[in-house]
Amino acid sequence: MADSELPHRPKPEAQDASAPAAEGETKNASKNALKKAAKDKAKAEKAAARAAQEKAQAAAQEANDTAKDLYGPLPETEDVVPSTRFSEFSEEHYEKEVTVVARVDNARVQSAKLAFLMLRQQGQKVQAVIAAAEPISRQMIKYTGGLNVNSIVQVTGIVKKPEIPISSASISHLEIHIRKVYMISEAAQMLPMQTTEEGAQVDAEGAPIVTLKTRLDNRVLDLQTETSQAITWISSGVSELFAEYMIKSGSRWIFTPKLVGAATEGGSGVFEVKYFKRNAYLAQSPQLYKQMCIAGDMENVFEIAPVFRAEDSNTHRHLTEFSGLDFEKTFRNHYHEVLEFAENLLVFILTQLKERYATQIATIQKSYPKAGDFKLPKDGKALRLNYMDGVALLKEAGVDVSEQESFENDLTTAMEKQLGQIIRDKYDTDFYVLDKFPMAVRPFYTKADPNDKRFSNSYDFFMRGEEIMSGAQRIHDIKELEESMRAKGLEPNQEGFEDYLNAFRQGCPPHAGGGLGLNRIVMFFLGLPNVRLASLFPRDPQRLRP
Amino acid sequence: MADSELPHRPKPEAQDASAPAAEGETKNASKNALKKAAKDKAKAEKAAARAAQEKAQAAAQEANDTAKDLYGPLPETEDVVPSTRFSEFSEEHYEKEVTVVARVDNARVQSAKLAFLMLRQQGQKVQAVIAAAEPISRQMIKYTGGLNVNSIVQVTGIVKKPEIPISSASISHLEIHIRKVYMISEAAQMLPMQTTEEGAQVDAEGAPIVTLKTRLDNRVLDLQTETSQAITWISSGVSELFAEYMIKSGSRWIFTPKLVGAATEGGSGVFEVKYFKRNAYLAQSPQLYKQMCIAGDMENVFEIAPVFRAEDSNTHRHLTEFSGLDFEKTFRNHYHEVLEFAENLLVFILTQLKERYATQIATIQKSYPKAGDFKLPKDGKALRLNYMDGVALLKEAGVDVSEQESFENDLTTAMEKQLGQIIRDKYDTDFYVLDKFPMAVRPFYTKADPNDKRFSNSYDFFMRGEEIMSGAQRIHDIKELEESMRAKGLEPNQEGFEDYLNAFRQGCPPHAGGGLGLNRIVMFFLGLPNVRLASLFPRDPQRLRP
Repeated sequence: MADSELPHRPKPEAQDASAPAAEGETKNASKNALKKAAKDKAKAEKAAARAAQEKAQAAAQEANDTAKDLYGPLPETEDVVPSTRFSEFSEEHYEKEVTVVARVDNARVQSAKLAFLMLRQQGQKVQAVIAAAEPISRQMIKYTGGLNVNSIVQVTGIVKKPEIPISSASISHLEIHIRKVYMISEAAQMLPMQTTEEGAQVDAEGAPIVTLKTRLDNRVLDLQTETSQAITWISSGVSELFAEYMIKSGSRWIFTPKLVGAATEGGSGVFEVKYFKRNAYLAQSPQLYKQMCIAGDMENVFEIAPVFRAEDSNTHRHLTEFSGLDFEKTFRNHYHEVLEFAENLLVFILTQLKERYATQIATIQKSYPKAGDFKLPKDGKALRLNYMDGVALLKEAGVDVSEQESFENDLTTAMEKQLGQIIRDKYDTDFYVLDKFPMAVRPFYTKADPNDKRFSNSYDFFMRGEEIMSGAQRIHDIKELEESMRAKGLEPNQEGFEDYLNAFRQGCPPHAGGGLGLNRIVMFFLGLPNVRLASLFPRDPQRLRP
Repeated sequence: MADSELPHRPKPEAQDASAPAAEGETKNASKNALKKAAKDKAKAEKAAARAAQEKAQAAAQEANDTAKDLYGPLPETEDVVPSTRFSEFSEEHYEKEVTVVARVDNARVQSAKLAFLMLRQQGQKVQAVIAAAEPISRQMIKYTGGLNVNSIVQVTGIVKKPEIPISSASISHLEIHIRKVYMISEAAQMLPMQTTEEGAQVDAEGAPIVTLKTRLDNRVLDLQTETSQAITWISSGVSELFAEYMIKSGSRWIFTPKLVGAATEGGSGVFEVKYFKRNAYLAQSPQLYKQMCIAGDMENVFEIAPVFRAEDSNTHRHLTEFSGLDFEKTFRNHYHEVLEFAENLLVFILTQLKERYATQIATIQKSYPKAGDFKLPKDGKALRLNYMDGVALLKEAGVDVSEQESFENDLTTAMEKQLGQIIRDKYDTDFYVLDKFPMAVRPFYTKADPNDKRFSNSYDFFMRGEEIMSGAQRIHDIKELEESMRAKGLEPNQEGFEDYLNAFRQGCPPHAGGGLGLNRIVMFFLGLPNVRLASLFPRDPQRLRP
């Protein structure tokens, strides 16, 4: 079709579809909009009246509508035209016809002859405009400008270069001049909240208009934002990179049971399940089972699976269900063989995230700029300090570490964060490892340091001063293991340990491993303020929905 | 060291370490060996006496033992020598010194001057021999021949070509002439069962001496067999190939919650969890959540996660917890776009399994030869039949399909198997797809066939006549979805559906997907008689251990 059929460009300042719309129903929807909607009779009646009126008009006008086949429900006979993705758009599309499938982020009738759509695809926004000019009819303009926000439409049109970039669109250097617009899936007239980026709209006090709770209550809408899309890609990337590294290293992918017969790892933190006529429990970690795989000669194993914690912790970094990335590996001589393997794993994941997901990271930083770029060690080698060196750094900075020096307590969360800052200042890295934790603060299956039994062959990994992995060499000698249990107040004969201990009675090679929290890696890598933002449908003591 | 220091080869017929050993404690261990062991006082006393005697002898003999540094506990100061893996062994190793780390599959003293070890590494067996010749002492020979079965040792020796292949070893064309043998992890003297391949030893009636129950009760030992090692590699391979295909297709890796607030997918099959002060349930599938991800504009998603079914089904193919491979994907025009995507997924997985895991498959076929090679369609395209064509094939074969023709019931398991045989005979494939199931036998979220509402846009995948995947186009229109719920006797307002239905109120693109059972794919691909063999630590109504 010739360009002359396209509408002339109106003034740029009038063209921004994100400017307040005349109807305004979907603007600044408060967090209780869903509940209020039912009560808001006036609006509903108005809408119903409008719908009835439109139906009558439509029938009357269809006869002489020159555009009647160019809009409305997607015709079943319509041939599938290849659609262009927003992410593919470039200057090469200027003056060409494209078809896109996208959501209506905003729709606005400017006049009887002109309407605007802001289209959204996985959070990215492109503006579309429709103007009366043969065969585009006034009815088609009215239909387009009156589309319910969030509806999914198929739009065909010519790509044009706007005179002034469209600041409210994420792709600001082009717009689509509409030729056809068909409905694929219509959204309700009233949405429970507006689909908007975090921090995009703030109230007089600077707080976001849509709270985290409202976002999570309406997580499906929240996932549609460009920021959420990017975060879910980073989550996907972390597990992909973890699996990639493991598979390359010859590791075997395992699936250990989540339903277990006894609450072996401490009673209070375990969810109880009704299992036919008895009780089962949800595994708090695959620890005992991945060790049993090592005893089963599997040598090098990894697992990607949910981890369940029945802890009533209501913090920014605790979930009752999270995604665990676990590995366990034999070694020949020294557990540092496995520690180095794990350090390289993290360097690989974090480096590759920056390389493969640069666009997504940039998008997220627009909404969460505070934490800044994640700093990786310059030489590609993880920084490793001994626990006591970390304690010394804190002491140097004037922190009271008497309990840590006397092995009574592990570092507190506040200390960890402070140490993270000290290390960032001193070593210019946000990722580092503490090795050789005191035996007193580690679980029974941890191998003591043979040179100094007060310490252990165990390590934690930190990102921005917060723990993302815990790991250690495990005891593989049955006598040593039973002694260690007794020293920790556990009875080797107690229910639930029989199968685990038998695995070592039958011989087991030296091994070490670790368990990573996927959601925490995503959270701290991106500097998100809350781990719930790094979970698709987060679970905490208060939240089982959606 | 010079070859002349090595022992001369004894007669080949005397050399087979798997021949009945003199002591024989670990031979033909019955299925109740673990329990019987405690009662078997005579043996235990004998063993204790032997241990005491050995200790005394050891002390007395150490002074004049020419080999005292060549055996015993692994010296801590011992430098780590690179070890050779059994799988790397070739004729190039003849006459060279190697170090291996392996389990003692069998140990036998032939005479005061000669002993044999059968070594086992991930199920593969290699024979080692030790003979008296400077500096090898009689004490060292006694130590070596008396090693507890299943202990992990580090053996250094010279690789020799045996005159006659060692039939009881899986690597029969070489043996190791021992120079050093060190203990890495000692196994208990009495094992609960012998680590032996399925079918390797049968009783007079031809039944395996070690039953499946005993194997699973002692799963760690059972995992050490070559067959189990191979099966766990196939499991690992299926998930790797699934993830690989999905990632290549631009699919996003998701983690949906397993703890859910309501038992939406039918009450009786759901495990109930105590969740702080209320109840939660374990997700029976990620169905509703992966659809919510599609409504959240994620377009193409996949998940690898446990699936929980509280069904009291005690069959060869049911587990209460299994590994689910799920995907969901938008399409533009027709759900066959997604169906073809899924068919290609299966063809990719099954073809690549044969290519990448040929060794493992060959190993497994030695223990489970009955089912034979898995037949794939010759042209690399999945065979797709309509459900009613399948019913017609059964009718042709004389099966009573009146209930299927009248849409009252789905195919029975017996019919599915029979159809599998008919299709194998007719089309020479063990993998095929049935499309267009009757709406009456599918869940509420299934899209009816727009051309004939008695049918639906749904499909099942079969391997060797047993279902491994169920999938469909899903209803994406809220009105249609609510109607479908009511038609199936479900109330859209009932607890638990609110979040799911809201996702469609807010607009959702057309989509389809499916859910695969990893364990079933492994089972049917390999022709295993029981799905428990394709699960690391299987869970069924009777089994929560190990």
